[in-house]
Amino acid sequence: MMLIEGPKERAKGLSSNRQKNTNEKEEQCEPVECSVLPPKTTYLVLRFAPGIDPQALQWLIRKIKTPREKGGGELLLKRQPSCDEKKGAVLHVSASAERISEAAEHLDLRLIGQNEPLSSSERRFIVLHELMQGIRALPEDHHVPGYPTARLYNGQSIVEVFHDVGLLESFYPLHNKENLRRLRKLWYCNFFQHQPIDEIRAYFGDAIAMYFSFLGFYTTALLFPMLLGLIQMWFSGPDSLLPAFFTILNSFWVILFLVLWKRHSNCLAYSWNTIKMTGLDDEPRASFRGEMGEDRVTGRILPQYPRWKSFVKMYLVSWPIALVCASIAFYIMLASFWAEQTILVWGTMQEDGTQMKPDYAVQALVMIPSIVYTALVFLMNYYYRKLATRLTEWENHRTQSQFDRHRVLKLVVFEFVNNFMALFYIAFVYQDLEMLRYQIALMLILLQFLNHFQEAIIPYFLLKHARKFSKLFGGTEKKKKDHDSDASSSEDDATKPLIPAEDRTGARLRRRQNSISLDSKSRSGFFSVLSDIPELDDETIARQTVDEGERDEYESTYDDYLELFIQFGYVILFSSVYPAAALCAVINNVLEVRADAFKLCRVTRRPIPKRVKDVGAWQRAFEAVGVISICTNCALLYLLPGLRESLAPGASELNWALAAGTLEHALIGLGLLLYLAVPSQPEWVRVALARHNFQSTRALKLG
Amino acid sequence: MMLIEGPKERAKGLSSNRQKNTNEKEEQCEPVECSVLPPKTTYLVLRFAPGIDPQALQWLIRKIKTPREKGGGELLLKRQPSCDEKKGAVLHVSASAERISEAAEHLDLRLIGQNEPLSSSERRFIVLHELMQGIRALPEDHHVPGYPTARLYNGQSIVEVFHDVGLLESFYPLHNKENLRRLRKLWYCNFFQHQPIDEIRAYFGDAIAMYFSFLGFYTTALLFPMLLGLIQMWFSGPDSLLPAFFTILNSFWVILFLVLWKRHSNCLAYSWNTIKMTGLDDEPRASFRGEMGEDRVTGRILPQYPRWKSFVKMYLVSWPIALVCASIAFYIMLASFWAEQTILVWGTMQEDGTQMKPDYAVQALVMIPSIVYTALVFLMNYYYRKLATRLTEWENHRTQSQFDRHRVLKLVVFEFVNNFMALFYIAFVYQDLEMLRYQIALMLILLQFLNHFQEAIIPYFLLKHARKFSKLFGGTEKKKKDHDSDASSSEDDATKPLIPAEDRTGARLRRRQNSISLDSKSRSGFFSVLSDIPELDDETIARQTVDEGERDEYESTYDDYLELFIQFGYVILFSSVYPAAALCAVINNVLEVRADAFKLCRVTRRPIPKRVKDVGAWQRAFEAVGVISICTNCALLYLLPGLRESLAPGASELNWALAAGTLEHALIGLGLLLYLAVPSQPEWVRVALARHNFQSTRALKLG
Repeated sequence: MMLIEGPKERAKGLSSNRQKNTNEKEEQCEPVECSVLPPKTTYLVLRFAPGIDPQALQWLIRKIKTPREKGGGELLLKRQPSCDEKKGAVLHVSASAERISEAAEHLDLRLIGQNEPLSSSERRFIVLHELMQGIRALPEDHHVPGYPTARLYNGQSIVEVFHDVGLLESFYPLHNKENLRRLRKLWYCNFFQHQPIDEIRAYFGDAIAMYFSFLGFYTTALLFPMLLGLIQMWFSGPDSLLPAFFTILNSFWVILFLVLWKRHSNCLAYSWNTIKMTGLDDEPRASFRGEMGEDRVTGRILPQYPRWKSFVKMYLVSWPIALVCASIAFYIMLASFWAEQTILVWGTMQEDGTQMKPDYAVQALVMIPSIVYTALVFLMNYYYRKLATRLTEWENHRTQSQFDRHRVLKLVVFEFVNNFMALFYIAFVYQDLEMLRYQIALMLILLQFLNHFQEAIIPYFLLKHARKFSKLFGGTEKKKKDHDSDASSSEDDATKPLIPAEDRTGARLRRRQNSISLDSKSRSGFFSVLSDIPELDDETIARQTVDEGERDEYESTYDDYLELFIQFGYVILFSSVYPAAALCAVINNVLEVRADAFKLCRVTRRPIPKRVKDVGAWQRAFEAVGVISICTNCALLYLLPGLRESLAPGASELNWALAAGTLEHALIGLGLLLYLAVPSQPEWVRVALARHNFQSTRALKLG
Repeated sequence: MMLIEGPKERAKGLSSNRQKNTNEKEEQCEPVECSVLPPKTTYLVLRFAPGIDPQALQWLIRKIKTPREKGGGELLLKRQPSCDEKKGAVLHVSASAERISEAAEHLDLRLIGQNEPLSSSERRFIVLHELMQGIRALPEDHHVPGYPTARLYNGQSIVEVFHDVGLLESFYPLHNKENLRRLRKLWYCNFFQHQPIDEIRAYFGDAIAMYFSFLGFYTTALLFPMLLGLIQMWFSGPDSLLPAFFTILNSFWVILFLVLWKRHSNCLAYSWNTIKMTGLDDEPRASFRGEMGEDRVTGRILPQYPRWKSFVKMYLVSWPIALVCASIAFYIMLASFWAEQTILVWGTMQEDGTQMKPDYAVQALVMIPSIVYTALVFLMNYYYRKLATRLTEWENHRTQSQFDRHRVLKLVVFEFVNNFMALFYIAFVYQDLEMLRYQIALMLILLQFLNHFQEAIIPYFLLKHARKFSKLFGGTEKKKKDHDSDASSSEDDATKPLIPAEDRTGARLRRRQNSISLDSKSRSGFFSVLSDIPELDDETIARQTVDEGERDEYESTYDDYLELFIQFGYVILFSSVYPAAALCAVINNVLEVRADAFKLCRVTRRPIPKRVKDVGAWQRAFEAVGVISICTNCALLYLLPGLRESLAPGASELNWALAAGTLEHALIGLGLLLYLAVPSQPEWVRVALARHNFQSTRALKLG
């Protein structure tokens, strides 16, 4: 692999790059035209709130079109046909090929010397980046025109402010039907093949490719415990030694899986050129607040905020709050168990003080605490997500990956308590292994499969159905479109479910808090503002824009990772008592790949591409569960009655506990050694990075 | 701190650098002369074996003097006055200021933009580096002339081969009396002040500065457990809760100490510009074997050896052997305990089957196993060190720091077994806490203080005494020198102690194995070879060369770190039963700083400077002991009778054990969180590194 090249080759590479770019199907214009006329491709759709003050809209449009050197975005705009102020303006953002390759240079998307054309997701990433990061408030911009309360400080991302206060309802890239069809064929239409990670990345971006790569790696890795589980199910009697032996094997498996995944993700990050993202030199989040100042790393003028302040906020405020919430959830769980027991005792108590078999009424009553608890967990989850997002927002992390990491960590602790504490309680307080097995099986089989329905299949049919419905009632094509766009813009308030699926990254949350009341009375100048912009002349794209505007947003990979995390917990935490778990998980995951892929391709809007170098906080979360699983399984071995009788029939309770404790310490110690012994970067990545460092340091010295 | 500068400033910086260099006291020649005439400074002394074939000597001398472009070292040589073939030739190696600054440029000794003059240790490091790394066998060199068995492969370090086969007896830099006096005044003559780490580094190099920095940091950190220990000793009754409370505090202390030291050492490594040494782009060891080939990182022609082969050798051969050795040591310890018990039982058994008080004969007999064990440990240590060095040599690690790391890891495991397993046995098998206390006190107080004597004070007096002795018998100054140089060169074989202190890095070991029999019959041409080289005209330096040749070599920091490691173990592993340990350690360390400093300045030869970025494997070794200490202390709490009675008088054995186990898990879990929460590089180092990366990547792109 060539890493270095002279300026000549680079220039050549660039021009060939540009040529290839423009030769692609998606860009159907000639290079010369591109810089003059807006190209056909819509990279992003901006949907504004109905009733937005035309002044504000005009101001933003001017900012977007103004050249770079005057502090604008230098991007190209077209308007959606039949915009109307009641439904809000819809604009198509595009950029010239030159503008995109310039920005790409600056963004370090590629390894030096890699001259492949920019992928479809990369071009969308660039345009989004230029829109959000490139257009920042100048010192003379004090507030959004027409909205004195929407204050701007010097250097703030203007589009982010529009989004925060609710003037910009949403922004999304459009699907490319041709590419999507190709991708689907490669991906989930054929059942028995590897996932096309490179193609997924080219279409959806790094974050989603990383998720599917992890899902594939994890599922393949699960084949080993699945095999062990099958052997254990078939060959194991009640007093077999297999559980002990397999606990040892599973412990090593979990460590190996975690460290090998880390290694694999480093390979991916290297070839995606994200491995060097340190949180210091990559781009700040659009909503990162701080004094404008010279960046200590890049020397550019960017918002600056001391990192120690984030740490102080995090450790002194956020984490204590998060831990209090987790404790409350824990106590609610205890209360539910207590209520269940109390009802059972009370309901089966006979007058003579003995217990009878619970009758139907009691059986129904006993279920009440569980139902109440489930509802409470649902509600708590909803509010806790909001809280965690707000806290993390308030901590003011510089980059998106830091933000995601710290938000996910807070959420994961809470989810851990909600999902696993009840199982811990059943296993180690009740010590009822039958009930434990039943619970795990229930969760794994029922909930996971229901998930697919809830995630992909139901939303898809709803979407299909909604279209049929609207077709029945709307008359002409024209009317239908209007109706749809109307519905989708008002849907946010009217048809919102109790807990909206899209309320996840907090964008909407913030929008609510800061939102400005929009008076929908007609304003003069709305049409004159839009008439400055050429109308989109592609009927198909226009229709697609409306159609995809109706779809749910795919906000982040959080829920998908969370699902795997919870599954991983069920599989590994209690593997010695429920060996069939891995089998369920494998079957589920084979379907999960398809369900998630289907969801992304057919159900949701095309997601906004994100650059990532790893799975973020999930690595730590999985590692934590891995280590905890060694402890729980050793504790379960201690509880398994058959094992004790066959291994050490005469041992005292204390000695048997000591034996389990010793096994646990040995496994954790050996696991740690294994973890440290496997280098987390393969040799070729280390060599390539060292070569890059060597060559660049030499270049710096010479230059 | 300025990191970047244009080529102009750099050129200016360089020339001023050179000027400053030459203005220094040590270099007493003008810049112009330096490149023409050999400067006065002796950077290194080479002492050849008596009886070396003049052909070989002449060949090496020519290699050393040949210009760089012809594959030589381009270094300057002088000969020691009154060299004679019976005593072996002694050469003084020097280099022109230009040669040194050229090599310094190449070696990346400084942060870019840092223009301080090269320190005394850095100049010695550079000359050594050019001698060992710069002079490599050419394709036409098949063996050392005159020694057909001393084969050379293309690219092998020639000086290393001379050293390996015993033709080059030793090489060492000379002390600079003036600088040494200044350093001693700053360092250990004044009792109450910080160590002058920068000055130590300038004189002795990174490795030794890192050791003293660690010693200082560790001793300061020990003040906290010392304070806790004092409180516990004064206020704690037999059933006090203090041990439990202080175990918790000590657990957090140990984690904090380890992570803060890592942080601190990263600061040091950054300012020493060694932080980016990855083992891939820094220089290979002189004895690194491999096919000559283009380096994948630097593109230079260097020996290449696939890293996976080292890993295979390490994990499949070396570590199994090391673990078998450690197990043997463990079983010998068990055997010694068993023998002791058996003798005691046998000796006190009365005819009626009851035990009597042991009489003196039995008491003496009982000591035999301990004495035999101690002697065995001594011997095992000696042979195991050789073995570990050979194994690590055979693994063929590329860089010195990798070699050191893997050698130290092997040794540490063995030392851990030898030093602590007996204590574990007493604590957890005998469960005799009184005996444990007694053992720790004995080890800490007696052995540590004896160490100072053995290490520094006795060798110093022996050295002084030897001089007086030789003065009494030798007549003139001239004769004395001859005598000394004779004695020192034959000392290796005749007066060698049973286990030579200098047999530590294996250099001598390898020399022995491969050594070539030297016939001491007179050879023609010895004088004609040496007469090509100018004689050293400084009487003082000549005398100093002989004097310092007599001294012991300071081979590495290994023994010093080992001492601290063992002490750390005694202090922290059993801190809940012997709280006074930290106090002993602090007192010992305050003396240790002085003893080690004294040893380096007055007793041993000036050490060969080494570049390091951290304490190497010791970080992991201390971390391991830190984690183990949490386990042992919780186990000791379980054994403490007073604590149980006051905390949980009615608890069953099992519940009390579970409580201790829970405490242990909680402490390890929280400790891990603490360890992860503290970033191992301070923000300013991260920013500076990111800035360097950003700027150098940009330079590479532009260049």
